[in-house]
Amino acid sequence: MILNDILDSINEAKEIIAVTHVSPDGDGIGCITALYKAMKKLDKDISIFIDDVVPDIYKFMPYTDKITKPINKRADLLIAVDCADAERMGSAKELLRVVPKSINIDHHVSNTLYANMNYVDTNAASSAEIVYQLIKILGIDLDQEIAESLYVGVVTDTGNFMYSSTTSFTHEVAGDLINNGVSVSKISDIIFHNIKYSKLKLISRAIDKMELYFNKKVAYMELKKEDFIETGTEISDVENIINFGRDIDGVEVAVMLIEKDGLIKGSLRSKNYVDVNKIAQKFNGGGHVRASGFSKNSSINEVKNEVLELIKNELNE
Amino acid sequence: MILNDILDSINEAKEIIAVTHVSPDGDGIGCITALYKAMKKLDKDISIFIDDVVPDIYKFMPYTDKITKPINKRADLLIAVDCADAERMGSAKELLRVVPKSINIDHHVSNTLYANMNYVDTNAASSAEIVYQLIKILGIDLDQEIAESLYVGVVTDTGNFMYSSTTSFTHEVAGDLINNGVSVSKISDIIFHNIKYSKLKLISRAIDKMELYFNKKVAYMELKKEDFIETGTEISDVENIINFGRDIDGVEVAVMLIEKDGLIKGSLRSKNYVDVNKIAQKFNGGGHVRASGFSKNSSINEVKNEVLELIKNELNE
Repeated sequence: MILNDILDSINEAKEIIAVTHVSPDGDGIGCITALYKAMKKLDKDISIFIDDVVPDIYKFMPYTDKITKPINKRADLLIAVDCADAERMGSAKELLRVVPKSINIDHHVSNTLYANMNYVDTNAASSAEIVYQLIKILGIDLDQEIAESLYVGVVTDTGNFMYSSTTSFTHEVAGDLINNGVSVSKISDIIFHNIKYSKLKLISRAIDKMELYFNKKVAYMELKKEDFIETGTEISDVENIINFGRDIDGVEVAVMLIEKDGLIKGSLRSKNYVDVNKIAQKFNGGGHVRASGFSKNSSINEVKNEVLELIKNELNE
Repeated sequence: MILNDILDSINEAKEIIAVTHVSPDGDGIGCITALYKAMKKLDKDISIFIDDVVPDIYKFMPYTDKITKPINKRADLLIAVDCADAERMGSAKELLRVVPKSINIDHHVSNTLYANMNYVDTNAASSAEIVYQLIKILGIDLDQEIAESLYVGVVTDTGNFMYSSTTSFTHEVAGDLINNGVSVSKISDIIFHNIKYSKLKLISRAIDKMELYFNKKVAYMELKKEDFIETGTEISDVENIINFGRDIDGVEVAVMLIEKDGLIKGSLRSKNYVDVNKIAQKFNGGGHVRASGFSKNSSINEVKNEVLELIKNELNE
C-alpha cells in the first residue's frame, strides 16, 4: 500500500527536501511550510525550495523565511507538493534524478504521477487537505504554526470555501485547524481583505468603462496601456477584476481585454451555460468551460467585435 | 433543564408559529424556513411570520413563499428566532401575550430573555447553528431544503466563515449541511457574487472620489445626492462600499459620508487599533470598536473636517 511506503520513507529519511511549484500559491506554500515544521518535530533535517519568489501576501506565514531557491543538496527523500507535473517544480525537477526516493502529493486531475510514490487525491479541494491527513497519520501534533500554514492552503484553493470542490472534509479540516489556534479573522484580513490603492483605482476605471451587451447578458471591459500607466498598476493587477463583470445580476458572460506586449489578451468568464472554453479556442486559446483566455495580435476593437459576435451566437436569446 | 422543556413543548404542540426579526437577514430567514420544513416533518401545523418583506436575494430559499406578515392566529407555541429583544419581532411581539408558550432562540449577547424558554447561545456564530442542533436533537432527518436554509444562515452571519465568531463547530455544521445536499457554489454565487450594475457604478464613483489622508492611513469617501440619482441607486446600495476603503493595504480607518434626508450619515471602519466607536460617540452615534456610525445635521464638508480631525488624534503617528 502506497501510504505505508510513504510513511516508511518519511520515518526512515534523515534529510528531506520539500518543493512546491513555480508561481507559488497559498496552497503550495502552506504545504511546504507545514511540512517544514512537522518534519522538524520528527527531528528531520528538512529544506524547503521554490524556484520562484514568495509573493508578499504570503510572507506573514510561518517559515516562509526558510524557503530558498533549489540547490543541489543531498537528501534521502524528495517531497513534491501541489505539482501536477515535474516541470512545475522548475529547476527543482532535477532533484528527482538525484534524490533516491520521491513522493508526489497533489490533488490535480492532470497529475502525471512522476515520483516513486504518488499520493494524488483528486477529491481533495487542496493539497493542504492531503498534507493535513499525512501529518495526522504520522502522529505529529498540530500546532498553531502548522495550522496557520495549512489553513492558508485550504482557504486559497477553495475561494474561502466557495468553490464546488469544497467538501465536508474541507470543513472538518478547517475546524480542526481553528481548534489548533488559527485566527480566522487575521488570516481572512491578510488574504482576502487586502488591496493596493492603485489596484482599486484600476478597478474603478474598469467598472467605469464597462459596457453591457445583448440584453445585459454580457459585461465587456477593457484596459489599455494608459490605464495601467495612469493608475500606477501592472498587468498582473488585472487579476480577478473580470469577476466584477461576471457577478452582475443577469450577466452570463464577462469579457476583459487588455493590451499586453503589443498583443490583446482576452479573459472570459461565464456563469451558467455559455462554454467560454469553446469561444477561447476560436482564438487558439482555452481553459475551462466557465473560465478561459486567449491572446491575439490585433487591435482591441477588432478583438472586441469578434469576441462579442461569438458570444452572441452562444447566448440563449 | 431548559432544553428538555423546549423539546417537550415542541413535541406537545400542534400549532406552532415561528418568527424572525424585521429587516430580516439570511440567518433569520434560514432559521424559520428550516423550522418550517422540520416541523412539517413532525406533522405540525406551522406558520412562519416576518413583519417585513423578504429581500429579493433570499427568495431562492425553500419555503420563503410561505412567509407572511404576522396575523393573530391561534397557536400552542411561538418560536422567536434571532431576535435579541421582543421589539425586533415588529408586530409579531403581540403574539408573546396570546400564544401560551414561547421559545427564544438566539445568539446575540444583548438578548433580553423575553420568552418563557430562552435558548441563547452567545458562542454560536449564527442562530442557524442553534436551530441545527435543535433539529438534530429532535431526531428530525436533515434534507436538502433544511440544509440549504441553515447553510444560508451560517454563511451570512459569519461573512462566509471569515468573522472571528467562526468556530470549529461552525465548520462541523457546514460540513454536515454539505453532506445533506447543499450546493456550495450555487449558494455562494447567489449570496456573495451577485451585484446590481447600478451599484457597481456607485462603487466606481466612491472609489474614484476616494482620498487618502495622514500617511495613507485613512481612506475617505463621500457620496452625494447626485451620485445616487445619476447612478440610479438608493441609499441602501451604499452598504459595504466602505470596505473598499478599509481593505486598502496600510489603511487603518475608512470613512464614508453620505447625504441622506438633509442629514449627513457617517460610517466608520477600522482595522487594528483605532476605536471608531469612540469617534462616533462624539457625534452622538455609536456601534462597535471596529465599525460604527452616526448622523449629523451639517454640511458634508464640515463633518468631513471634524471627523478627520478626530481620527487624526487617534492614529499612532
